[in-house]
Amino acid sequence: MTDNTAILLIHCPDKQGILAAVTDFINVNKGNILYLDQWVNKEEELFFMRVEWDLGKFEIPREKIEEYFATLIANRFAIKFNLYFKDIKPRMAMFVSKMSHCMYDILARYSSGEWNVEIPVIISNHPDLGHVAEKFGIDFKYFPINKENKDEQEAAEIALLKEYNIDFIVLARYMQILSENFTRSYPNAVINIHHSFLPAFVGAKPYHAAHARGVKLIGATSHYVTADLDAGPIIEQDVAHITHKDTVEALIKKGRDLEKIVLSRGVAKHIEHKVLAYSNRTVVFD
Amino acid sequence: MTDNTAILLIHCPDKQGILAAVTDFINVNKGNILYLDQWVNKEEELFFMRVEWDLGKFEIPREKIEEYFATLIANRFAIKFNLYFKDIKPRMAMFVSKMSHCMYDILARYSSGEWNVEIPVIISNHPDLGHVAEKFGIDFKYFPINKENKDEQEAAEIALLKEYNIDFIVLARYMQILSENFTRSYPNAVINIHHSFLPAFVGAKPYHAAHARGVKLIGATSHYVTADLDAGPIIEQDVAHITHKDTVEALIKKGRDLEKIVLSRGVAKHIEHKVLAYSNRTVVFD
Amino acid sequence: MTDNTAILLIHCPDKQGILAAVTDFINVNKGNILYLDQWVNKEEELFFMRVEWDLGKFEIPREKIEEYFATLIANRFAIKFNLYFKDIKPRMAMFVSKMSHCMYDILARYSSGEWNVEIPVIISNHPDLGHVAEKFGIDFKYFPINKENKDEQEAAEIALLKEYNIDFIVLARYMQILSENFTRSYPNAVINIHHSFLPAFVGAKPYHAAHARGVKLIGATSHYVTADLDAGPIIEQDVAHITHKDTVEALIKKGRDLEKIVLSRGVAKHIEHKVLAYSNRTVVFD
Amino acid sequence: MTDNTAILLIHCPDKQGILAAVTDFINVNKGNILYLDQWVNKEEELFFMRVEWDLGKFEIPREKIEEYFATLIANRFAIKFNLYFKDIKPRMAMFVSKMSHCMYDILARYSSGEWNVEIPVIISNHPDLGHVAEKFGIDFKYFPINKENKDEQEAAEIALLKEYNIDFIVLARYMQILSENFTRSYPNAVINIHHSFLPAFVGAKPYHAAHARGVKLIGATSHYVTADLDAGPIIEQDVAHITHKDTVEALIKKGRDLEKIVLSRGVAKHIEHKVLAYSNRTVVFD
Repeated sequence: MTDNTAILLIHCPDKQGILAAVTDFINVNKGNILYLDQWVNKEEELFFMRVEWDLGKFEIPREKIEEYFATLIANRFAIKFNLYFKDIKPRMAMFVSKMSHCMYDILARYSSGEWNVEIPVIISNHPDLGHVAEKFGIDFKYFPINKENKDEQEAAEIALLKEYNIDFIVLARYMQILSENFTRSYPNAVINIHHSFLPAFVGAKPYHAAHARGVKLIGATSHYVTADLDAGPIIEQDVAHITHKDTVEALIKKGRDLEKIVLSRGVAKHIEHKVLAYSNRTVVFD
Repeated sequence: MTDNTAILLIHCPDKQGILAAVTDFINVNKGNILYLDQWVNKEEELFFMRVEWDLGKFEIPREKIEEYFATLIANRFAIKFNLYFKDIKPRMAMFVSKMSHCMYDILARYSSGEWNVEIPVIISNHPDLGHVAEKFGIDFKYFPINKENKDEQEAAEIALLKEYNIDFIVLARYMQILSENFTRSYPNAVINIHHSFLPAFVGAKPYHAAHARGVKLIGATSHYVTADLDAGPIIEQDVAHITHKDTVEALIKKGRDLEKIVLSRGVAKHIEHKVLAYSNRTVVFD
Repeated sequence: MTDNTAILLIHCPDKQGILAAVTDFINVNKGNILYLDQWVNKEEELFFMRVEWDLGKFEIPREKIEEYFATLIANRFAIKFNLYFKDIKPRMAMFVSKMSHCMYDILARYSSGEWNVEIPVIISNHPDLGHVAEKFGIDFKYFPINKENKDEQEAAEIALLKEYNIDFIVLARYMQILSENFTRSYPNAVINIHHSFLPAFVGAKPYHAAHARGVKLIGATSHYVTADLDAGPIIEQDVAHITHKDTVEALIKKGRDLEKIVLSRGVAKHIEHKVLAYSNRTVVFD
Repeated sequence: MTDNTAILLIHCPDKQGILAAVTDFINVNKGNILYLDQWVNKEEELFFMRVEWDLGKFEIPREKIEEYFATLIANRFAIKFNLYFKDIKPRMAMFVSKMSHCMYDILARYSSGEWNVEIPVIISNHPDLGHVAEKFGIDFKYFPINKENKDEQEAAEIALLKEYNIDFIVLARYMQILSENFTRSYPNAVINIHHSFLPAFVGAKPYHAAHARGVKLIGATSHYVTADLDAGPIIEQDVAHITHKDTVEALIKKGRDLEKIVLSRGVAKHIEHKVLAYSNRTVVFD
């Protein structure tokens, strides 16, 4: 498998001929299409597409593809697009607090080379998990946060993220709400794991709420963070069956496995540039 | 398998010796225990138990078991209990409106002898599904309901249910809210199917709401109906994965299979006397 | 939703330009594409595609589409294709024996208009389920089969199927193995439900085998029937969790719900022309 | 929650009065029962039970419980039993080869205190994962194995396991078959993860076999290792849905999440003394 590929994520109003125009642009310039998935939202008349092609013999130089595609195709169809290169790894920062299960799951994947990503820094509002970051040789930055210093600390975090050239952030059970200002700085680039099948049990303590309500399933949801708490575009969800025998503690324990898998699935999709968020929903390509 | 069995459903404050006392009561009187399941809610200190035994050689006559058990055991431990005999089939009424999938699923099971139940009557607020009832040779009673006649029609329905000696009611996608008066007349004896993983998307049009929110799972919930809409004790829940490609129509279609299976599972558990509702939750025995 | 649409199922060796050529053929002739899904098997270099378009303004008359497509496109790319029209309902025969759960599930869907199909006849090697066919007003033909008369009876069945213009056959827990001659007459047009997650527990009595092995899951598989028993291309599979408490009888009971849902999902995909079988596997479009 | 508890795992031929006798033994001696689960295999007339009680006020001293229970109860009913104390952590050795996902999942749980276990040593037939063991501060012992030295190396491993007082072994994707002699030394004490839903795809390369067969689900199975390869008692199984689009590489990737979760669930049940193996099957208590 070559890594010398380009990936285009596209969405625009649906019109005849978009698919043909895009594939033609690639074919004519000697790009070999490795993957193509498209979907038309018939209700809202929107066209979505993800295409990946081999750049080995592609005649347009890398640094010109964006310009050429914009000029020749995108402008004609009012296409919004993002262009990625597979050999340029996205850079991720992880935010953690005191629970380590999601953190370990992500670091194990990272460490074994499962993911095409760089994780240069881990940020936390508690010092507790510094030793885990150290195990994996990753910088750990501690930002204690309270009502008084929140603005200031977030500003410092954002400065740090820029210093590390961070593309996206993963909240791995980070127990601190990001300010609207922060989330606006990273649109569709902050992934959170919520420990319920949203929109059930929004807010804190969803396992307690689930237990009190007597549900027979618990869930987890990975989603992009927006200013509206627990209401951002959903990437992945899954559930596990429970019974009356499960105490709140048992739910928390069972939930950990759900949380880490659902978060990691969402992060993997993001890393592979397979998620396209629009009007508070997502298109998740195969 | 003999049908000459008794089934006891028990709950009471947890104390030492309940389990031993109940099993001893059965053993000493020559009952052969076929099934026993018990569970202690440690948080609220409550004891729950379901036991079934062969009456073949049981020395207490059927009609005296309730009295003897109350006197000798239940009073001592403040036990609340229900006694059932397997060879006395519970009598069920089904309420339907215009959608037939849950109705067919239930009638197919009934007709093939899968369930130990009698279904002598089907009630509807629309005439549309009369032909289905007719196919299966079951009485079909049409009660058109509007704001003006609701009290009167419900009174007539309750009179009819008494006439048919109905033990419990199944709302098989019945699109009419029962009055508080009605639901109070059948505590933990009206089973509804809600087409969402409650408590997400309470109320009408949950598939529309799910689509608008962009969830990646749809669900269904069978529960006992209480005066508090969509908030009664949950018996069974399940979900199915969906994607961005699913329109509201696709959700409705996929949802039908969930609804019928989750409702039928809940009804089966009720028929087998394996559900015990308490403080808005259920214990569902294996 | 219009029913005046054409559906093309395509597969061929992968080459540059197929996707563009096919979509261009439709666009240029004023067909509005409603659905398009394609997939390239990179390992075997095979191209697969399903496309559906509105014929409202399509300039090639219906009866000429096959010829034009063959001449202009298919020959060029060595494409094998099947063309269907949505308003021509496929005609299905159902084969049953003594168990009714899959039969009822299919007839309920048929009767409520869920499926775009005609079911003019039900064939059985036992008379038991005639009354179910009668309930739904469908012809029921009884062909008792034993070693001596098998060839003759199958010949009579095939004659009957031709008389009814049957396109495909569904074995709804039909407990009689079809001869190689029979299955060869209906390639990728006989759908069976096997009550295990094939290839585990091939052959008869899979629930007994599953219980003996002590597995923690039971499964069901819908697949096309080939001369090689239980080895044909798989369309759909699903499983349910079980525990040590489940007896063989309990597995059979739980299995019924799996079987009917997995069979009906497979049949629905076939009816929608979304299944493409090749080298003993299937491509199942969304 | 106190850790000063005793856990009894019991099985014996079913007879009237066992349950009462066991609970009475505990009650009379002032043990407070915290957990009780029992099950009767009616087909084979076998009784199974797991009971855990608080030793705080228990009148029989710890070191005498085994003797008293044997004398007073077990002998009477031909009970086979195992007695455990919750505050005595079982000691586990992990065997690994080159794949790290199961190893990391286990070490993350261990490291965060999720499991009541000690893992003093990791054994491998390859040096590759030594750095992971080192991260977590656990001894790593490298035993290269080939046909010639296998007996000798296994003898050395067994000696090492004794030195470390190992109670049970977890094969975390250990790619070397243990000899019959080895597995006999640890009956129901070696847990393996097989990357298929056994008994489908026994042996090596199950993902390749699954892909070739065109199944729509992949699975994983955790089981006790016996002399009969891939045929030991199953503890946990689960599956994930796949499609025709998944290459063998994609199956391997998706399979990793299944493998680690299914193995860890099996190990957790073993650590909690909730698994009882008999005649090649398991009873897994809640």
